[in-house]
Amino acid sequence: MTMAPIGRIICAGLGPGDPDLISVRSDRAIRAARHIAYFRKAGRQGQARRIVEGMLAPGAVEHAMEYPVTTEIPFDSPEYNALLAAFYDDWTVRLQVLVQQGHDVVVLCEGDPFFYGSFMHLYVRLKDLVPVEVIPGIPGMVGCWNATGQPITWGDDVLTVLMGTLPEAELLRHMQGSDALAIMKTGRNLPRVRRALAAAGRLGDAWLVERGTMPGQRLQPLAEVDAEDCPYFAIVLVHGHGRRPVAEAAE
Amino acid sequence: MTMAPIGRIICAGLGPGDPDLISVRSDRAIRAARHIAYFRKAGRQGQARRIVEGMLAPGAVEHAMEYPVTTEIPFDSPEYNALLAAFYDDWTVRLQVLVQQGHDVVVLCEGDPFFYGSFMHLYVRLKDLVPVEVIPGIPGMVGCWNATGQPITWGDDVLTVLMGTLPEAELLRHMQGSDALAIMKTGRNLPRVRRALAAAGRLGDAWLVERGTMPGQRLQPLAEVDAEDCPYFAIVLVHGHGRRPVAEAAE
Ligand SMILES: C[S@@+](CC[C@H](N)C(=O)[O-])C[C@H]1O[C@@H](n2cnc3c(N)ncnc32)[C@H](O)[C@@H]1O
Ligand SMILES: C[S@@+](CC[C@H](N)C(=O)[O-])C[C@H]1O[C@@H](n2cnc3c(N)ncnc32)[C@H](O)[C@@H]1O
Repeated sequence: MTMAPIGRIICAGLGPGDPDLISVRSDRAIRAARHIAYFRKAGRQGQARRIVEGMLAPGAVEHAMEYPVTTEIPFDSPEYNALLAAFYDDWTVRLQVLVQQGHDVVVLCEGDPFFYGSFMHLYVRLKDLVPVEVIPGIPGMVGCWNATGQPITWGDDVLTVLMGTLPEAELLRHMQGSDALAIMKTGRNLPRVRRALAAAGRLGDAWLVERGTMPGQRLQPLAEVDAEDCPYFAIVLVHGHGRRPVAEAAE
Repeated sequence: MTMAPIGRIICAGLGPGDPDLISVRSDRAIRAARHIAYFRKAGRQGQARRIVEGMLAPGAVEHAMEYPVTTEIPFDSPEYNALLAAFYDDWTVRLQVLVQQGHDVVVLCEGDPFFYGSFMHLYVRLKDLVPVEVIPGIPGMVGCWNATGQPITWGDDVLTVLMGTLPEAELLRHMQGSDALAIMKTGRNLPRVRRALAAAGRLGDAWLVERGTMPGQRLQPLAEVDAEDCPYFAIVLVHGHGRRPVAEAAE
């Protein structure tokens, strides 16, 4: 490439779901965007796009980046990896071309882009080709623990963030060793997460937060939940209790 | 109390430091506030107040909540606990009176209020007395990992958040068991944090981020840092590398 890039990629962190929780900088970038790109499952509107509904400028060009596979193929198979890599490669080229034509492209990313975000796969490919700016966002788990109306961590509490996709023994080990817990990607992993929490003696303290800060938000003690019926946008939380000033501990 | 409370407490999460990273909802609350309260060390402007410089409405009444002690007394002594508890009790009454007089009071809180925030000590005291709304914010660590320009977690990575105040053996145990790490409250605990990271074989991957997203932000490989000279607003980060699509791992 000898042509100087004259546009840039702006990845706008969206926060947990409520559009009012988007940062001032992301909000400004989204409203000003002439090109908007976002990931979604084929045939769906997509969560990221839904969050910015009503915010886009008239005439903004939308680029829906539709995943070639989601849960049809096992995520640890070579086929899955190859398909996804080709998908990210393809969009890298398409976005690079737009930028080299002089366009700014705003890429939407739920939560914080650098925290388990899909954008990261584009980021590693694009960052040495074109200018890329990433705007942080409130991670989904932060919106979820705020929804519980209870601080997640106090004093010296250790917080461990786990993926529900981890093997049960690993989940258990971390659950035993940590004060506060946030477990993401629950969905169909919920039965395993639940068993591990029960084995760690922490099921009674766990909350399931579905669609935190979004329409249809739901909070339930995990012990009361039917584990077969968990949406993708759900997080399991266990609050820490930490060290606090004495008078308070007595409350 | 028989008088119906007619105002409320709004705790506005401020995010990591850059005012542009405040959420749209917090930004609006701060600019509209007629009463603003914030914690600070006696004689200092205070980080929270500094972040909102230039945003306050003319005539806004400021309530600086000055800590009675900071590091002069050991934090695990009964004196420290008693002093702090009395301080929070005192401000609980003062804020409650303002709210019962019909005022909304915006309490500023760095990062996210429910994530190791001082506001939580007022929250537990106030929440059954007057209406309290808490607006989430981007935690400081999220601003810091964005400042490194590198994703903190991928795939199934485990992220553990630790306080530099923990005993060295506990730090070590968590550092060995986790993929990604965020270690807060480093300051004068930095030598211990460093020793534990070295023992865990992870010192070479650690970054020190000082004043992330604020003026004077500084990033350094921790191994190159003089451990005696660490400011309060600093975080140690170790990035996870996770599971990624195959083609990418070969990059
Ligand atoms: C691939 S991760 C993306 C994380 C995102 N970058 C963030 O910062 O939150 C997707 C997982 O985030 C969690 N999640 C994100 N936002 C959520 C919300 N508002 N309510 C419940 N879960 C949420 C769910 O566990 C979901 O499986
Ligand atoms: C009492 S905790 C408050 C955390 C806050 N509620 C949050 O969500 O970030 C204070 C610690 O946060 C970390 N911290 C917060 N913001 C930071 C920033 N912008 N840069 C570096 N460290 C930060 C430092 O480690 C500091 O010791």
